[in-house]
Amino acid sequence: MNALGFAAQSAASPLESFAFERRAPRPDDVVIDILYCGVCHTDVHMARNHFGFTTYPIVPGHEIIGRVREVGPGVSRFKAGDMVGVGCMVDSCQHCKPCLKGWEQDCVEGPTFSYNGQDRQGGSITYGGYSDSIVVRDKFVLSLPGGLDPAGAAPLLCAGITTWSPLHRWNVGKDSKVAVIGLGGLGHMALKLAKALGADVTLFTRSAGKEQDAFRLGADHVVLSSDPEQMEAVAGRFDVIVDTVPYDHDVNPYMPTLALEGVLVLVGYLGPLGTPVNAGGVVRGRRAISGSFIGGVPETQEMLDFCGRHGIVSDVEIIPIQKINEAYERMLKSDVKYRFVIDMASLKS
Amino acid sequence: MNALGFAAQSAASPLESFAFERRAPRPDDVVIDILYCGVCHTDVHMARNHFGFTTYPIVPGHEIIGRVREVGPGVSRFKAGDMVGVGCMVDSCQHCKPCLKGWEQDCVEGPTFSYNGQDRQGGSITYGGYSDSIVVRDKFVLSLPGGLDPAGAAPLLCAGITTWSPLHRWNVGKDSKVAVIGLGGLGHMALKLAKALGADVTLFTRSAGKEQDAFRLGADHVVLSSDPEQMEAVAGRFDVIVDTVPYDHDVNPYMPTLALEGVLVLVGYLGPLGTPVNAGGVVRGRRAISGSFIGGVPETQEMLDFCGRHGIVSDVEIIPIQKINEAYERMLKSDVKYRFVIDMASLKS
Ligand SMILES: [Zn+2]
Ligand SMILES: [Zn+2]
Ligand SMILES: [Zn+2]
Ligand SMILES: [Zn+2]
Repeated sequence: MNALGFAAQSAASPLESFAFERRAPRPDDVVIDILYCGVCHTDVHMARNHFGFTTYPIVPGHEIIGRVREVGPGVSRFKAGDMVGVGCMVDSCQHCKPCLKGWEQDCVEGPTFSYNGQDRQGGSITYGGYSDSIVVRDKFVLSLPGGLDPAGAAPLLCAGITTWSPLHRWNVGKDSKVAVIGLGGLGHMALKLAKALGADVTLFTRSAGKEQDAFRLGADHVVLSSDPEQMEAVAGRFDVIVDTVPYDHDVNPYMPTLALEGVLVLVGYLGPLGTPVNAGGVVRGRRAISGSFIGGVPETQEMLDFCGRHGIVSDVEIIPIQKINEAYERMLKSDVKYRFVIDMASLKS
Repeated sequence: MNALGFAAQSAASPLESFAFERRAPRPDDVVIDILYCGVCHTDVHMARNHFGFTTYPIVPGHEIIGRVREVGPGVSRFKAGDMVGVGCMVDSCQHCKPCLKGWEQDCVEGPTFSYNGQDRQGGSITYGGYSDSIVVRDKFVLSLPGGLDPAGAAPLLCAGITTWSPLHRWNVGKDSKVAVIGLGGLGHMALKLAKALGADVTLFTRSAGKEQDAFRLGADHVVLSSDPEQMEAVAGRFDVIVDTVPYDHDVNPYMPTLALEGVLVLVGYLGPLGTPVNAGGVVRGRRAISGSFIGGVPETQEMLDFCGRHGIVSDVEIIPIQKINEAYERMLKSDVKYRFVIDMASLKS
């Protein structure tokens, strides 16, 4: 199946137009015409081989919204014309314990990621959402609730589920006090979702001037983490802190702001925490440092349905695909409120 | 009230016989003749001012078993002759949220510790269990179930509750897989309690030769943490790891041995973890690093009642109080199986 997209041909090359072949649809596949694709930090890291395992050419993109073009004979949940989403995964073993629980992100064999993954049957390398179309196993296709702006909904497929999953796991609801560290693509979704779940929501930020945006996005309070007095004032307050900071940082100052048995959940960073973690920060008050990595397919559908009921989408800046390299540079400087989304119609221009 | 005990007069002095005055009993007090007192690592640290806030003279000891001599007119739960225990705390504010929950260890004003604490009414410094008697507010006196050896029961008041509390909080039961890091005073209690709770129990140890003891104490498996193959063989296995190591150590190698959503609970160390904690170790699989600090009074009574039903006590080496300084040296070399307990009758010899 012929497809057109944007790809990087090496770690040093910019993304450029790329015509390629998608695998032929199988009986349980859904063929999707892509309308929008969000731009995630992971896309930049993978395009530039920051993790060291990128296969080139790479077509990034895992925040995909599109319309079903056709479905295989084994597919009953979708039909041509349906609005759907695809996130970070397009397949998994489907028989291990985590998969059976709907935790495909924890698949014992490893899930098939939407790009730079390897198709479980044909062995071909997967290409992501910076393209006009995609072929995805039906079980990994999400249904987009009516009424949601499709461009704004695209980032729900990664930024949305990444922040929803820890809120959900740690039972955030109307009696919860939640804090979010960092106001970027993940942080702004965390604010919106926590607020819609009924929590009292605080944004931790290192720099003043974010208040207006934070309040508009759902924060009830903003705390300057560089101000010891403000930090002291929220001692023992939060049931859950969603830490969206995407680089090494010191988590110790946040620990005393957790309530007894509260938990700080890392969602933006996977490397070593260079500042020694103080054991006392978790021993006292039975606090915890945990983490979360995207979310499973059933949980992603739950999140989308929740967003549908509450009218939640991401704040996006829509770009033509020809601006993708510039968007990467701006994203690295946090110069976006709060997510770039590619309008895939631009591919034809 | 006159009392006799053993005290350190300075950070450099050995413990020696010490005659002192206990505060006069108040209406809600229980006066206890001490029969046995366990010897905890904290006792050494405090006697030698390792934390920098010891007031001298200090009478250590917070694993106390004794017999009620008399009770104040406001005390109805105890009467003369009852066998009772006293742990790390002898009072707290009793009106803050944690206190009302039975989490006196988290009292917002700070609990009154059994030694080197400050009496909330008179302001006197508290003296611990290395003595012939103690005066304790009734709410902080535990009832010792019949049938438990009183000397062996003494360490339940600190080592027991310290390991019980995380097992209890993280819902360890017959379907749980639990690992314990370290086989000392805390570790051997963790093995016994986890086993009695019905869990499948593993001991992590750095040195071979602990197998026989571990199996006898309740371990179903022993894993040499220095052997990469053995570590690999338990990947993804444990729901809860109770980490009893009392000094800085690298927790990263244990994280992959946790099951999805599993938790490593630090109970033996309060300082900085010098080896950078890898965020990936908690992000992948939603694992967590938490901690736990002794336990509340109601939980301590639950633990004692559980031990009563299951016939669980600590493995102890009983010493006369005159051997306490030698016991400290041996304990620092882990030369005890697994807890020293002072027979307080020796005070009179
Ligand atoms: Zn992403
Ligand atoms: Zn699987
Ligand atoms: Zn102790
Ligand atoms: Zn209190």
